[in-house]
Amino acid sequence: MKRVVIVGMGFGGLRAARTLAGKGLDVMLLDRQNYHLFQPLLYQVATAALEQESIAYPIRAMTRHWEGVSFRMAEVIGADFEKKQLFTREGQIDFDYLIVAAGSVTNFFGQATIEQHAYDLKKLGHAVELRNRILTLFEKASREKDPARRRACLTFIIVGGGPTGVEFAGSLQELIRYVLTKDYPELSIGETRIILVEATDRLLAPFPENLRRYTLERLRRMGVEVLLNTRVNGADGKEVFIADGTIIPACTLFWSAGVAAAPLAAAFDIPKAANGRIPVQPDLTLAGHPDVFIVGDMAYLEQDGAPLPMVAPVAMQQGEYAGRAILAKRLDRPVPPFRYRDKGSMATIGRSSAVAMAFGRTFSGFAAWFVWLALHLMYLVGFRNRILVLLNWAFYYFFHERQVRLITEEQGKTK
Amino acid sequence: MKRVVIVGMGFGGLRAARTLAGKGLDVMLLDRQNYHLFQPLLYQVATAALEQESIAYPIRAMTRHWEGVSFRMAEVIGADFEKKQLFTREGQIDFDYLIVAAGSVTNFFGQATIEQHAYDLKKLGHAVELRNRILTLFEKASREKDPARRRACLTFIIVGGGPTGVEFAGSLQELIRYVLTKDYPELSIGETRIILVEATDRLLAPFPENLRRYTLERLRRMGVEVLLNTRVNGADGKEVFIADGTIIPACTLFWSAGVAAAPLAAAFDIPKAANGRIPVQPDLTLAGHPDVFIVGDMAYLEQDGAPLPMVAPVAMQQGEYAGRAILAKRLDRPVPPFRYRDKGSMATIGRSSAVAMAFGRTFSGFAAWFVWLALHLMYLVGFRNRILVLLNWAFYYFFHERQVRLITEEQGKTK
Repeated sequence: MKRVVIVGMGFGGLRAARTLAGKGLDVMLLDRQNYHLFQPLLYQVATAALEQESIAYPIRAMTRHWEGVSFRMAEVIGADFEKKQLFTREGQIDFDYLIVAAGSVTNFFGQATIEQHAYDLKKLGHAVELRNRILTLFEKASREKDPARRRACLTFIIVGGGPTGVEFAGSLQELIRYVLTKDYPELSIGETRIILVEATDRLLAPFPENLRRYTLERLRRMGVEVLLNTRVNGADGKEVFIADGTIIPACTLFWSAGVAAAPLAAAFDIPKAANGRIPVQPDLTLAGHPDVFIVGDMAYLEQDGAPLPMVAPVAMQQGEYAGRAILAKRLDRPVPPFRYRDKGSMATIGRSSAVAMAFGRTFSGFAAWFVWLALHLMYLVGFRNRILVLLNWAFYYFFHERQVRLITEEQGKTK
Repeated sequence: MKRVVIVGMGFGGLRAARTLAGKGLDVMLLDRQNYHLFQPLLYQVATAALEQESIAYPIRAMTRHWEGVSFRMAEVIGADFEKKQLFTREGQIDFDYLIVAAGSVTNFFGQATIEQHAYDLKKLGHAVELRNRILTLFEKASREKDPARRRACLTFIIVGGGPTGVEFAGSLQELIRYVLTKDYPELSIGETRIILVEATDRLLAPFPENLRRYTLERLRRMGVEVLLNTRVNGADGKEVFIADGTIIPACTLFWSAGVAAAPLAAAFDIPKAANGRIPVQPDLTLAGHPDVFIVGDMAYLEQDGAPLPMVAPVAMQQGEYAGRAILAKRLDRPVPPFRYRDKGSMATIGRSSAVAMAFGRTFSGFAAWFVWLALHLMYLVGFRNRILVLLNWAFYYFFHERQVRLITEEQGKTK
């Protein structure tokens, strides 16, 4: 039986696995984690709106229903594409077909002090860490007598005006306004600051002008300070340095101003494109290796003169395409080149407030927010997770309550 | 306004705070964590049945509804009872009345190799660590080719035949039998072993003979090996050493064979009773300090010739008593001595299976299990937590599914 190995169980790998399950192939899934993570909701874990478990789904809970599919928790560290061998920390795995879908990491663009001090949101642990950080700073501020130090505790600088930066800024502001002000009567809301810093002159760059304007106005009305045409170029854990020389005392810096292909890409001896991505053929294979597919954030492919964006819908469509391509190749059927169908984009700003574009139209406000909500519930894996997330959202919507505001201890002694 | 400081927001501290709220006193709550933890369900977090967030409740979510009550997240490191001062890592706090309810920790009885290698369940982090450990060992076993090493991965030794040991053993066995066998078709159920080790000749010592026998038979029928009159006296992470010289290859040792008063007790210059507990007067105050109360696991008080047990119901009744005693003292009313009313005990063994004694009668099987379930839901703090726990239990009951089988990464780089 031919073996397909899929590396990474994000959106791309998951779709590929689903497509290949029960098709008479030996499908082996590899991931460093034992769960599929719904990354688009990480910012809600970071802002105490969801428990981490509700956006993760055990991979084996899926594979047990999929014929011919097995899972191995392992970290891939390299490959020999000629010999069709994959190297993991736990040993070597042979493959007939390979789909690499290891995703991306945050790109700090080599700025060491930022990488050292900034928080980012790519893993489940990051989100929990950030939530613990925010809540710990509120506890610290409630004990702090010095107004300047207290203000630094309560100043949050968010870099990057893309969807992650906008969604995190909006959600954090709501957490503070609606929940933490009631928790900390000893603090004044006027002492908290959320500053969203964007290097260009616009938020949500790929969106049309009316939605960009809506987003900017909405965030400012919520009390988020938005600094456009501004760059952050350093941090020391207590202060954040702006490129024009301004220094903002702030204990928390959040970075969402860039992504790069996962470090695994660097382990492959192939020339890279921008952001460390791996250039692929129109059928998503590596040049000279028609049985090796790269999909999702790791793959670099241009369409209509522009590189495909590093977003979930591209990864999903590419994962499914790679799965189908392998099935077609086995039957010696030709495979048409991959083509991304952009079904739309959306970002949520706050309660009852979002922007969306789809079907050539734009939506904002409650309607966009409601569609955002429904789509995210739909793409979440697992019936129980959907119920949990829906319950959490309902509690927040009706009672303005976010109960996951726990500072969970470090996981202590490792045995 | 007189200030009451309450140290520790477990069952005792919480009851005291509730009793004193809105009574014209300045009530200050202190805890190292920012949440109240429902300890009796920790074993269900450790066995992937509940998410950690569902058994923790933010303390500030309570204090915001309680008049005159404030919270400070702080670790108490000592006190001067004469000067009525409390010392925390974050500074000094003056009090008029003090209630110390810092609870207990696991007692390893000075056995260093056990303390180093054994898991225990007193904190939320412990439960998550133990769940990660169990699941990681199953992943490891699924890759392990050597049968002896694989068997060691899948052998779990539980020391202590009290409620925690019995409940954890039963829940772990069900996790393996009903859930993990489906997740790991590559492993054989016959290779897993759960061994419950008890030093005396009985499980659940305080229960009547018919319930103890039911428990023992039930566990054995479920496939748990129960070793009575057996002592563990060492471990090295790969093997567990039995006092009679037997060596059992087992990667996981769980210890629930003893508890001792929280380390804070040692910081007080007072002679201690057994297990480091602080002897108190019949009104739960310290001898010579009528304004200082010790409640719950930390307090040592005899009733009818025997020390009160270190269990939640005692802590709850003592917390409430201390609160009322302070209210009475302010009005110069006499306070009758504390008397514990034992309303019964219960322990759950598995799905539809528990033992209980109450109203002078004993119950076992489904009825006891149902009452156990209802009572635990009732004592859980927070409407949302009750819903979450109920949902998880229903999913498990009807679908035999425990979805929280996630190996969450270490919380990474601390900034």
